[in-house]
Amino acid sequence: MSEPAYDLVIRGGTVATACDVMEADLGIRGEEVVAIGRQLGPGRREIDAGGRLVLPGGVDPHCHVEQLSANGLLNADTWESATTAAAFGGTTTIISFAAQHVGMRLRDVVADYHRRAERGAVVDYSFHMILADPTEETLKEDVPELVATGHASLKVFMTYDRLRVDDEKLLDVLWAARQNRAFVCVHAENHGMISWMGKRFLERGLLAPKYHPASHPRVSEAEAFDRLGAAARMLDQPVMVFHVSTKEGAAAIRRMRGEGIKIFAETCPQYLFMTAADLDKPGLDGAKWMCSPPVREREDQEAIWRALELGDLQVISSDHAPYRLDETGKFSAGPNPTFKQIANGMPGVELRLPVLFDAMVSKGRLGLQRFVELTSTAPARIYNLPGKGSIAVGHDADLAIWNPDREVTIADGTTHDLSGYTPYAGRTVRGWPETVISRGRVLVEDGALKAEPGSGRFLAREAGEAARPLGRPSAEVALLLD
Amino acid sequence: MSEPAYDLVIRGGTVATACDVMEADLGIRGEEVVAIGRQLGPGRREIDAGGRLVLPGGVDPHCHVEQLSANGLLNADTWESATTAAAFGGTTTIISFAAQHVGMRLRDVVADYHRRAERGAVVDYSFHMILADPTEETLKEDVPELVATGHASLKVFMTYDRLRVDDEKLLDVLWAARQNRAFVCVHAENHGMISWMGKRFLERGLLAPKYHPASHPRVSEAEAFDRLGAAARMLDQPVMVFHVSTKEGAAAIRRMRGEGIKIFAETCPQYLFMTAADLDKPGLDGAKWMCSPPVREREDQEAIWRALELGDLQVISSDHAPYRLDETGKFSAGPNPTFKQIANGMPGVELRLPVLFDAMVSKGRLGLQRFVELTSTAPARIYNLPGKGSIAVGHDADLAIWNPDREVTIADGTTHDLSGYTPYAGRTVRGWPETVISRGRVLVEDGALKAEPGSGRFLAREAGEAARPLGRPSAEVALLLD
Amino acid sequence: MSEPAYDLVIRGGTVATACDVMEADLGIRGEEVVAIGRQLGPGRREIDAGGRLVLPGGVDPHCHVEQLSANGLLNADTWESATTAAAFGGTTTIISFAAQHVGMRLRDVVADYHRRAERGAVVDYSFHMILADPTEETLKEDVPELVATGHASLKVFMTYDRLRVDDEKLLDVLWAARQNRAFVCVHAENHGMISWMGKRFLERGLLAPKYHPASHPRVSEAEAFDRLGAAARMLDQPVMVFHVSTKEGAAAIRRMRGEGIKIFAETCPQYLFMTAADLDKPGLDGAKWMCSPPVREREDQEAIWRALELGDLQVISSDHAPYRLDETGKFSAGPNPTFKQIANGMPGVELRLPVLFDAMVSKGRLGLQRFVELTSTAPARIYNLPGKGSIAVGHDADLAIWNPDREVTIADGTTHDLSGYTPYAGRTVRGWPETVISRGRVLVEDGALKAEPGSGRFLAREAGEAARPLGRPSAEVALLLD
Amino acid sequence: MSEPAYDLVIRGGTVATACDVMEADLGIRGEEVVAIGRQLGPGRREIDAGGRLVLPGGVDPHCHVEQLSANGLLNADTWESATTAAAFGGTTTIISFAAQHVGMRLRDVVADYHRRAERGAVVDYSFHMILADPTEETLKEDVPELVATGHASLKVFMTYDRLRVDDEKLLDVLWAARQNRAFVCVHAENHGMISWMGKRFLERGLLAPKYHPASHPRVSEAEAFDRLGAAARMLDQPVMVFHVSTKEGAAAIRRMRGEGIKIFAETCPQYLFMTAADLDKPGLDGAKWMCSPPVREREDQEAIWRALELGDLQVISSDHAPYRLDETGKFSAGPNPTFKQIANGMPGVELRLPVLFDAMVSKGRLGLQRFVELTSTAPARIYNLPGKGSIAVGHDADLAIWNPDREVTIADGTTHDLSGYTPYAGRTVRGWPETVISRGRVLVEDGALKAEPGSGRFLAREAGEAARPLGRPSAEVALLLD
Repeated sequence: MSEPAYDLVIRGGTVATACDVMEADLGIRGEEVVAIGRQLGPGRREIDAGGRLVLPGGVDPHCHVEQLSANGLLNADTWESATTAAAFGGTTTIISFAAQHVGMRLRDVVADYHRRAERGAVVDYSFHMILADPTEETLKEDVPELVATGHASLKVFMTYDRLRVDDEKLLDVLWAARQNRAFVCVHAENHGMISWMGKRFLERGLLAPKYHPASHPRVSEAEAFDRLGAAARMLDQPVMVFHVSTKEGAAAIRRMRGEGIKIFAETCPQYLFMTAADLDKPGLDGAKWMCSPPVREREDQEAIWRALELGDLQVISSDHAPYRLDETGKFSAGPNPTFKQIANGMPGVELRLPVLFDAMVSKGRLGLQRFVELTSTAPARIYNLPGKGSIAVGHDADLAIWNPDREVTIADGTTHDLSGYTPYAGRTVRGWPETVISRGRVLVEDGALKAEPGSGRFLAREAGEAARPLGRPSAEVALLLD
Repeated sequence: MSEPAYDLVIRGGTVATACDVMEADLGIRGEEVVAIGRQLGPGRREIDAGGRLVLPGGVDPHCHVEQLSANGLLNADTWESATTAAAFGGTTTIISFAAQHVGMRLRDVVADYHRRAERGAVVDYSFHMILADPTEETLKEDVPELVATGHASLKVFMTYDRLRVDDEKLLDVLWAARQNRAFVCVHAENHGMISWMGKRFLERGLLAPKYHPASHPRVSEAEAFDRLGAAARMLDQPVMVFHVSTKEGAAAIRRMRGEGIKIFAETCPQYLFMTAADLDKPGLDGAKWMCSPPVREREDQEAIWRALELGDLQVISSDHAPYRLDETGKFSAGPNPTFKQIANGMPGVELRLPVLFDAMVSKGRLGLQRFVELTSTAPARIYNLPGKGSIAVGHDADLAIWNPDREVTIADGTTHDLSGYTPYAGRTVRGWPETVISRGRVLVEDGALKAEPGSGRFLAREAGEAARPLGRPSAEVALLLD
Repeated sequence: MSEPAYDLVIRGGTVATACDVMEADLGIRGEEVVAIGRQLGPGRREIDAGGRLVLPGGVDPHCHVEQLSANGLLNADTWESATTAAAFGGTTTIISFAAQHVGMRLRDVVADYHRRAERGAVVDYSFHMILADPTEETLKEDVPELVATGHASLKVFMTYDRLRVDDEKLLDVLWAARQNRAFVCVHAENHGMISWMGKRFLERGLLAPKYHPASHPRVSEAEAFDRLGAAARMLDQPVMVFHVSTKEGAAAIRRMRGEGIKIFAETCPQYLFMTAADLDKPGLDGAKWMCSPPVREREDQEAIWRALELGDLQVISSDHAPYRLDETGKFSAGPNPTFKQIANGMPGVELRLPVLFDAMVSKGRLGLQRFVELTSTAPARIYNLPGKGSIAVGHDADLAIWNPDREVTIADGTTHDLSGYTPYAGRTVRGWPETVISRGRVLVEDGALKAEPGSGRFLAREAGEAARPLGRPSAEVALLLD
Repeated sequence: MSEPAYDLVIRGGTVATACDVMEADLGIRGEEVVAIGRQLGPGRREIDAGGRLVLPGGVDPHCHVEQLSANGLLNADTWESATTAAAFGGTTTIISFAAQHVGMRLRDVVADYHRRAERGAVVDYSFHMILADPTEETLKEDVPELVATGHASLKVFMTYDRLRVDDEKLLDVLWAARQNRAFVCVHAENHGMISWMGKRFLERGLLAPKYHPASHPRVSEAEAFDRLGAAARMLDQPVMVFHVSTKEGAAAIRRMRGEGIKIFAETCPQYLFMTAADLDKPGLDGAKWMCSPPVREREDQEAIWRALELGDLQVISSDHAPYRLDETGKFSAGPNPTFKQIANGMPGVELRLPVLFDAMVSKGRLGLQRFVELTSTAPARIYNLPGKGSIAVGHDADLAIWNPDREVTIADGTTHDLSGYTPYAGRTVRGWPETVISRGRVLVEDGALKAEPGSGRFLAREAGEAARPLGRPSAEVALLLD
């Protein structure tokens, strides 16, 4: 009897990419998809996907994993827990951060994050390098070296006391990125406005988590977007704006793209499904929904959906940033913290896809193909992860097999990160990723993890098309390029 | 010996869709693609695609074929010649027009166009119904009946003396479309401005073809777009703006989409590759480049490329409208015609794909995947042609096998329509569709047509997602929907 | 004893212009102000203005007086009644219309309106010429002749069945104006939208006056403004947009001015003080508040105030158009008319200033100087009425002496036009023009008219600065100017 | 024989205000105008103004006089020299600065500037208080006290190393202004962009004055305007943007005003009459035209003229900032300074009016009345200087008698400030202020100064209408106002 044609066959499912939907089997050999077709020959192993959707594994390009904050606080997850959560949620690739703080040598930081990731990761991963201290050594020595070894994206913060770069340093980073052909991701909010509002609230004794959204005045987002766009246009350096939260922010992105600025943008599920009202809870319970930028209002959600529809925003990431609701996490500043002392962030890597599937596929907003594109195909393309983000012959066999009919009521304790809670508790979603496969290996099946820590692989990335300058800096900067 | 697995295998090519590029064979059974994979089993017939790109056949949603003008002039092509030209150019689906004129019964018009198409068509086809006389009978009787039989798109003209609808009739048509769930395509230019300018030029003895572009003042385009958009928003009826030619027009489309109007738009290769200077030729030679709206300037080309990049324009069609350069065509008004008397239009269905492939793939502007999307995938999706526009298991096997290295110098006499000339004569392009396949049948191979007239099939279309109203008409119109 | 220095002294008042407020006497000799000063010498007559505001007489540039409509209906006023109403309201100059209808010779129309005005007018007056039939004779013969004799402004309608010009004729009129250096005033609404909506309401049996506002969909205004602006820019001809009613219209004016289009605009008190809710009355009573464009909503009022503040709108006129509430006026179409059959318009020339004084001066919105500017100085400047619109040495002594403390409750029967009602009945205003003077003659004093019919004077107007083209037509039109 | 009616009569001139032009005499008693009229009675003194224009004295609200910079450099003028220059140029009121530097007590600074001004001033004056160190003491103690004593305007810098406030301090200042009802004037440029560009030019050895304009990249202006506007809107505090230099900046002001932000703006003659090309001179000669923001291009000039025409900019000040071309001024950093080491600023208080009169009146751009408004009436109104800025009964007799026909060729050495040069040298202007009068005293006559140092008077100012908040802060800030 002949050798099976495939190592693994996913049989009888509905295979979908961002372009196409097909009733087809998938044939996998080694780590790759090698055939998409009707009635494929036998595999060593076969998975019955009848009545199921076979989608590309999710790509989550914005996750904070085992990341140390400026004040020494480590977030709740280990690489193992975070990537396990990712796998259970149908996500097979994440991009996390290597976070420099002031005084740290960037190359050491990156090496350190690599060490931890390679021990724990269950899914494939890559890094953005956070630059909190863009010294000459960082920019002239470390950045070139690290970009050359597959770390082709930098991240900067325009807010947070100990992380932020001022406008001049922002230009330094953009310029270094341009010279080394790297992409730049930005947390863009106006620091002064946030700091000023926060102090005013504290002065007046308005201390509860529910004041957090108003302490980031709406205008602080669009203002920073505009300023970032002005810098990006001046230097002709492409940028990615992280986590758009307001309608004004979405409009600013649209306007700047129309003006020819090469600016990309993402949002996150929290900005599509939560509002400021979620923080209005007794005691400190609102802390669960505290993230930065804060969640906003219904009309912002609508504006962001529209921006996704028009392509002004291209990506939906999780901004996974898990903190326990205790003194090791959210409340590390001591008892009775003010909202300014509570750590910002919420877990998201696991439920990003289920809550979006429910809204986009089950309830029909934008539809299945845009779901795949926004959560997998587009991040893989923009961040240049060849072989990821779609189902195609020659691609990595990174797959999530969804039961479109399964209803799941989300509860604390059902997710796999270490934060101990989920901001979606109590919601019921329709559609669930039951089987998850990475490079041909089954990661999750029958509700159990099947992979070993450390089996995830580092994905070295060069800058792709998204990071290519347009060749049209401002007239003044052109004088520097002669 | 076992039965071959496939009727036809395209072997060893690089298969590309709007999403993916794969080194893969294609297996075809009957009319469908049934497998995409490495080392597929044998086919009854095999085509070697080594070193070739295997792309979805083009979808050209804007072609004038055997169409009678208001003054009785028939354009140069027959269904056989036009669809043969399409096939040679790698296009396997066209949407043409059934053109009502004043006094004609729409259902008779449509029946008549069907008769001619089914005798001659070599590729698959569908129809837009031109409404020049939207009487109550047309709108209340014929449109519902014809939409129900697969003619789910209407076209109206806002200019041309005997075709145009005024603003009130435009609303009548949009309303009828909304009530019958049809899409509306519009030739949007301000008639009064064009008429006024034309008369002024004639008064001053400025008669040559080179005055044609200026006789359609730039503002006449954006003005009409804005007016159309105002009407579309008022009634909440989606529309498609045909052949965007100016940067102001492109900007208007972008603005309106950002304001929440459901408006789609296309451009054509002539607006990307030609300028008004092309019309400045001795005698009447400039007539070759006369089309309506006219070709514009370099900066318009750039603006339209940018609008394509941002998704403001979603489709590139040909607006194929062939006239011979003699008294049967361009010069039917008699000797020494003024530019107002010369028929507008140029052949384009054949070279649409080659000139765009050269620019987008060979020269790299926007790239291979956007080429496929703009010329095939997006028109199939927007006009709702399931099974067309991509390469996927279960899709029609409509394919064009491109030699990306073949250089062709375009010359009059090398194209297959009956106009007798091509506006691209003298240009050299790189990349050529050498083998073209429709529903598994080879149409073109070794430079020869292999298909019979009448082998093309009518594609009945329901309105798709693009034609779905948003459910948000203006407050005044909402009173009519109670 | 010496001759009195002045014929008339207004003593002890607070004199205000658009620029200055002064405690000063005014000295008048003949028809002119010859001195503004402290303790002026004696006059033959003296008027004590202690505690009073002495303001320039109002200039109302948009009044319909003894005007025949296309269907033969004459509005309610005679020249005597309308100008008497003006005088009682503190207005000393009006611009009315000479209204051509289809088939009429413009020069005859103008002569006829002159005859009636010179018999009846109590205040000074001028004419805009309405062109409903811009034939070659009208444009090439009559317009040049009439502009040369002091009729330097044309008016056209973009709506109304028997008055409107289409886009091409609009261009004809703008071009004739440019060639003869005349200003063009426009009633700009989209005719097709209004007609379409009206028919739909009638079809559904929605017949009452309260459907009138919705039958002019909001977008019909801004759309027409944009179209007019496109034409004005194309030909480089300055225009005045009459009676802005919507926030979108105000925004369009602002945008176009910012783009360099020479476009002026006015609004009227009805758009600042009334809303669509005013039409929701039993039976036909809502007809009192029917005008065209219709009154809108609170947020439109706010937007128009803001546009006045920013200078986007420069003038507040009355659009005085009085019809009796009987078969000679509003209800001339017979009993039980639909809202489409009721004459549009309301009286306004008398109360324009009192209701605005109350809002702007007594209640403080924009203030005294902007009140003077918007109702007197700016219309005199824009329409080029030297000697009118301000209080200055050498100017005509056109004055209104206001008691700023007098409260008046407006009631039907208290105004002097012949419509028989006022749309402001029931409102109480603070501030009243007690004494009104035209060219040194007292017109109104102690509640009585002191002037004879026919004592008003025709003001021949050349085009002023406002009507001067910028010298920057579109590139296409520039070809016509070589 | 009777007493003369007036102390001074200006006889036979053409008197112009921002509203009116009159052939009239002016009668002055004491410090005030008491009559404007024909054939006024005799004065103790009479000035023949036949053939002359009698205009309000200029109000220059932006002059740096005896001002110490952060590095201890004093600018070239004394109060005597600067106000003498003002007087010779037809300006009778200036607003100068009391400049706090870091560590200085604001009340002491203000007292010190008062001492120097009262000894030297020839014309009337007022102060803006520069806040470089907005400590709690400054904002909570000194600002309330000083606003209460007539210093109702604050100024902050968004650029300059030792002067600038960051975004949070900017909000502190705006908030303090709102609570004390003061106006805020801002030098708005993006500091980081300017600093970054400067360093890059120096690194590359591009050191000459001609690199100064490019070192302030164009976008640095509009970016800062937008950021300032965002802050102003957030706190609902009116602001004045100083010295608009770019078309993008002018457009930003227009946009923000249209969005309802209460933002005012000025420009200066250098931005209307000079371009970056003026700095391209051998050696350090370009330093004469160095100011900050820098002068720009022709199209910026056009845009700024247009913004003045539309009312987007309301004021033309001089930004008088004189430095000698030696080691005491421009070159105090030592020999061979780089452009970053050269003091920015140019003299302007004297020629502001003559160069503008030439352009606006003699050459006709915008005209006489807008000339008066922009240079005198509007600054007096916006900065709340009652009795200044117009010619009216009861106003201060601050007058400039212009010979409209006198041609003057400007040369170094002909102006009265102490900088030793003028950036207008070599230009010929038509129109000159020959006699200048302040509060009825002749300041300048027959080319000579007639007034004593110290005869100018301090003008205590309350905040006027311009400084009144709208009452609509952002929703977040509204929480602070409960």
